[in-house]
Amino acid sequence: MPLPQGFRIGSAAAGFRKPGRDDVGLIISDVPAELAAVFTTNVFQAAPVLVCREILDSGHCVRAVLVNAGQANACTGDEGMRRCRATVDMVAQATGLNIMNILPMSTGVIGDQLKLDLWQNVVPALVSNMGTGNAESFTRAMMTTDAFPKFVSRDVALAGGTVRLCGMAKGAGMICPNMATMLSVVLCDAHVARADWQAMFALAMGRTFNRVTVDGDTSTNDTVLGLANGASGITATGSDATTLAQALETMLGELAYMLVQDGEGASKVIHIRVHEAATDADAQAVARTVGHSQLVKTAMYGRDANWGRIVAAVGRSGAHFAPECVRVSLCGVELFCKGQPTGAHDEALKEPLSGRDIIVDIFLGAGTGAYSLLASDLTHDYVTCNAAYRT
Amino acid sequence: MPLPQGFRIGSAAAGFRKPGRDDVGLIISDVPAELAAVFTTNVFQAAPVLVCREILDSGHCVRAVLVNAGQANACTGDEGMRRCRATVDMVAQATGLNIMNILPMSTGVIGDQLKLDLWQNVVPALVSNMGTGNAESFTRAMMTTDAFPKFVSRDVALAGGTVRLCGMAKGAGMICPNMATMLSVVLCDAHVARADWQAMFALAMGRTFNRVTVDGDTSTNDTVLGLANGASGITATGSDATTLAQALETMLGELAYMLVQDGEGASKVIHIRVHEAATDADAQAVARTVGHSQLVKTAMYGRDANWGRIVAAVGRSGAHFAPECVRVSLCGVELFCKGQPTGAHDEALKEPLSGRDIIVDIFLGAGTGAYSLLASDLTHDYVTCNAAYRT
Repeated sequence: MPLPQGFRIGSAAAGFRKPGRDDVGLIISDVPAELAAVFTTNVFQAAPVLVCREILDSGHCVRAVLVNAGQANACTGDEGMRRCRATVDMVAQATGLNIMNILPMSTGVIGDQLKLDLWQNVVPALVSNMGTGNAESFTRAMMTTDAFPKFVSRDVALAGGTVRLCGMAKGAGMICPNMATMLSVVLCDAHVARADWQAMFALAMGRTFNRVTVDGDTSTNDTVLGLANGASGITATGSDATTLAQALETMLGELAYMLVQDGEGASKVIHIRVHEAATDADAQAVARTVGHSQLVKTAMYGRDANWGRIVAAVGRSGAHFAPECVRVSLCGVELFCKGQPTGAHDEALKEPLSGRDIIVDIFLGAGTGAYSLLASDLTHDYVTCNAAYRT
Repeated sequence: MPLPQGFRIGSAAAGFRKPGRDDVGLIISDVPAELAAVFTTNVFQAAPVLVCREILDSGHCVRAVLVNAGQANACTGDEGMRRCRATVDMVAQATGLNIMNILPMSTGVIGDQLKLDLWQNVVPALVSNMGTGNAESFTRAMMTTDAFPKFVSRDVALAGGTVRLCGMAKGAGMICPNMATMLSVVLCDAHVARADWQAMFALAMGRTFNRVTVDGDTSTNDTVLGLANGASGITATGSDATTLAQALETMLGELAYMLVQDGEGASKVIHIRVHEAATDADAQAVARTVGHSQLVKTAMYGRDANWGRIVAAVGRSGAHFAPECVRVSLCGVELFCKGQPTGAHDEALKEPLSGRDIIVDIFLGAGTGAYSLLASDLTHDYVTCNAAYRT
């Protein structure tokens, strides 16, 4: 599917980490776009995050997003800020754009300074490639340990006509749901008022990207950017804004699912659904405790209906409930009820547990609070990936 | 080293999970012993934990500890309580002891009911073996995924003469520092007042067993029991009580170290030491966030001086500090300071990171709060162990 109107993409290979693969990407909007943005809550914020925040706070419309993979430019101090601005400056000079209209994003290993010589070499190719790329090539240019590129396009019918949304994201490690948890860019050719656009993201984020976990680690670089350039000539206000917000949430939900599906080494997507909690916060505490439990995650990898590990995680979550009221089902089969096993046979779960999607339903019997979370499993490949990622 | 005076040990093979290995153990004190006990904070408490609590609350002196491996008798409801009491009753009948003087402990898979037929068969052998065992055989009888038995004996010189302490513990999974995090029994032949004895455990626990983590999961069965039977004829009061408390803390610290060393699949013991925090609670939050980080744990397994993952974990810990004041050292080599890398070469860390003990020092520059934690690494063997533990 083509990009939303008025956006062009290019990518190129700088050789930051692996030779012969594109690791720099650029999106240019032909006209100024309204910006929505959400950033990591980590105290250590990478240089590109700080630069993006300056642009967001300035209220400027934006024209471009510049991404690189292989070097995160995080924990790099003043020199990291200087080098981040230098890369933006190179692109500004080559394109004629203003530096305050270009949003930088970086991902990769923490702590190394950007290799400016490689940047100097690659910018001409990057700029001359503008218009030859698409959502997939941009997504590939920001992949690190990702196994596949994650992007979604969607047409949205509004009163004035059809507009297009395109979302791109990268995982696959340091993924934990506490604000945006990776890099993601959403393009839209509707015209949307900045406050509406930002509100749509804030709302959708809490229901999508903030409800996934791979490893419980929150990155220093997490950034979600939304660019609405109005190039379709269609404005989304009133009920159209609601329609667009719903489409955005659906799209971010699909990307969030892909982030977990492509979690480092992951073989399963575990859907943890907590019901009947005293509060939504309690439900969230239970879901996160279960979703972060190494023992639950390895059991799911082993296709083991080991509900005891789920119950043990529920019991240390800090949520309030009476133990004898708790019920736990796996893929629709109730395994634990009234403080003891239901006697359901493991055999009934053999088939469902061999699939990719595993459904865990936890009923606390304490109220009407609810929460759901997507978690990956913990596998040999996860350990291989992360014991060898840097050295 | 012989046991403290007045204690006898026996063990036998019931065949709960694996044939041909001892999986039931019994300790009898020839005279009534003062009891100190600490239990799991998990909301789901196993039947033997509930029975032990009854005995502790009754104020009775105790005569025996009964342990089994292979079945945790957790999340088993009223039937689990009934079966727990049935096993205690069998031992009471065979030994002539009162049921309120026998403390049961269980470890193994959650959710299965105790196999009372196997208990019926094994109790005569168990009782006839009394006196033939020692700290090692008792510890072996409660091992599950443990690779080696964990026990320590120590003579303590008091004013009135020398008394003996013997501590035994089992790991190796569902190990997270929030109260006692496994099964452990401490025997002592001094006479100690109950209140003093319990206070010694409460204090030592916070500095030893509560400062280790393997997987962040808190078990439903965690129990630490201390039996002081006074059989040496020596009473520990005043400064002698202080001496004994110090010896106890040292011993529990050694056992805690062994728990991490023998964490499931572990190849490293990571010593996480947080300094200069605004508060001790902040220091603890940082230590636990780093110690639970899958990315840090896999990096240490991979012998990778990947300080960026440590810094990222510090940044999401919730502790208060200024990012530019944080310093991080690995095995004494400072790697991060003033918001950026120090430029220390990875080469300097190759040798230290290949050893078993890895020292991580984190200085927050925010005050005088401090905390230390022992954590295991995350390895292929951990995943193998836990993906295959039950099925």
